[in-house]
Amino acid sequence: MKVRIGIDIGGTSIKLGIFQDASNQVFLHQKWSTAAFETAPAMVTAIAVWIKQQLTSQDLALEKIGIAAPNGNYQTGQIEFAANLNWGDIVPIRALFQAEFDCPIHFDNDANAATLAEWSMTDPKVEDFVLITLGTGLGAGIISNGKLVHGANGFAGELGHVIIEKNGRLCGCGRRGCLETYVSATGVVRTAKERFTKQGNTSILFNQTTELTARDIYEAMLQGDRLASEIFQFTGETLGFALANLAAITQPAQIVLAGGLSRAGKYLLEPTIQSFQVQVLPILRDKTIIKISNTDPNQLGILGASLL
Amino acid sequence: MKVRIGIDIGGTSIKLGIFQDASNQVFLHQKWSTAAFETAPAMVTAIAVWIKQQLTSQDLALEKIGIAAPNGNYQTGQIEFAANLNWGDIVPIRALFQAEFDCPIHFDNDANAATLAEWSMTDPKVEDFVLITLGTGLGAGIISNGKLVHGANGFAGELGHVIIEKNGRLCGCGRRGCLETYVSATGVVRTAKERFTKQGNTSILFNQTTELTARDIYEAMLQGDRLASEIFQFTGETLGFALANLAAITQPAQIVLAGGLSRAGKYLLEPTIQSFQVQVLPILRDKTIIKISNTDPNQLGILGASLL
Repeated sequence: MKVRIGIDIGGTSIKLGIFQDASNQVFLHQKWSTAAFETAPAMVTAIAVWIKQQLTSQDLALEKIGIAAPNGNYQTGQIEFAANLNWGDIVPIRALFQAEFDCPIHFDNDANAATLAEWSMTDPKVEDFVLITLGTGLGAGIISNGKLVHGANGFAGELGHVIIEKNGRLCGCGRRGCLETYVSATGVVRTAKERFTKQGNTSILFNQTTELTARDIYEAMLQGDRLASEIFQFTGETLGFALANLAAITQPAQIVLAGGLSRAGKYLLEPTIQSFQVQVLPILRDKTIIKISNTDPNQLGILGASLL
Repeated sequence: MKVRIGIDIGGTSIKLGIFQDASNQVFLHQKWSTAAFETAPAMVTAIAVWIKQQLTSQDLALEKIGIAAPNGNYQTGQIEFAANLNWGDIVPIRALFQAEFDCPIHFDNDANAATLAEWSMTDPKVEDFVLITLGTGLGAGIISNGKLVHGANGFAGELGHVIIEKNGRLCGCGRRGCLETYVSATGVVRTAKERFTKQGNTSILFNQTTELTARDIYEAMLQGDRLASEIFQFTGETLGFALANLAAITQPAQIVLAGGLSRAGKYLLEPTIQSFQVQVLPILRDKTIIKISNTDPNQLGILGASLL
């Protein structure tokens, strides 16, 4: 049986899926703790041993391996300066795997891999697609003409670092007003803290003694807290504005929202869509479907990697 | 001899070029006044007669025809609601030409055609490219992975309608703060008029009795007028900001500026580049070349059409 393998390297765990031929259903999967490996070569050796055992014992013909990692550069085949991995600044991941296997090895960053996975689920198929991943930051992958947009050096899709507010919030990149300082799990917490000084003393969030998280704000909103509700409204409106500007550039047929913050569901989606429709160029109105991903986040990484 | 034909339909004139095979040098060209044709079928008939005469008399084998027009929709093959053409709201231009010729007929808008032309001149070749045309408005064409980005309905590349200033200047599209209300020939005139109320009375532009144009501002700048100089500085800074945001999305290797306003040369280019470098995401700094087109604008349209 012909198979392809997807490997999703993350700060907490490394997930692997074996997929049968052209199927998107995982046939066999495995997981390792990232911290179990002190070096990248040790990690690759362990995974290669496991893969080879499976190939032999189950009589599988390996066609290709796809690997996704944070800060993965598809041009160099390296993980470059990933904040959540402790294997050095530059990890030549593609070369390490290529030394173990003869088949083609594809490598890209996790946002692009997730985009391919989510895009493979669109029905009917679209050629122009965007995935937005709302986690600690805001990641994005863009597909135009049915291909991932990598840009000249693999840095396309940095939608989280589009400046939407001149002299706005300070970003980790050193600049001010980047989209991800507003629209992300950390962004909503910043919105809450900013509003405390103005109107927060009537909110249940104001009296919280533990460190505030996006989840706390979400739960307060479900309990009817007005400030929490306004925070999600503002976050969606801000995202809708940024997506309206994005639509004027690549005009995607579909934009899918994934990642932890997207679990807020309609509370995030409704203000996003409303803001998009009001703010987008009139000829682009009603031409882009915006929705929340319903793919299992644990599957997204390995499936996307296997499709690279 | 095998040839391809490019036809550039504009509000003033219709230009046609015959190109030998893979060459980008025009072999034969012709021009008609747009106003000479009361209807689109009359225009197509006249041009078809001329083309057929040339093919016969010079023994040419026609491989393909490319046609570019304002508001040209490559999906429908129609000119749709073009403000400067008087042949009706919907002109089925591709079908009209196809009725006359057996060869493939390609059709797109003028901004995309010009982008292909300018892109064909890049040396070394790049796969990720943007052309910005600065005229009455701001048009753009985007190439990613070596292909024009059309978007889901052919409306990609509307960079002129990216909102860069919330509650900014009123745009012809009905919204506020679009890039082209600042960065275009009309945009610089608006900047001048806005500044007259604050600081203009010391400028030579303030006392001008005829209707102010971008050219007047340019000439005043060459004469050392301080306000005029500040206007170009501001225009470049604004463009650089918008291009920095664009780079975070599609990360082009090259951005070329064309159109009437680009003739301001270094007075526009220098503040644009400086602003881009300061405002772009640090990992994208020094990765995009921004320059002024040095292609003959009369050639750009027919060459681009022939490359569609």
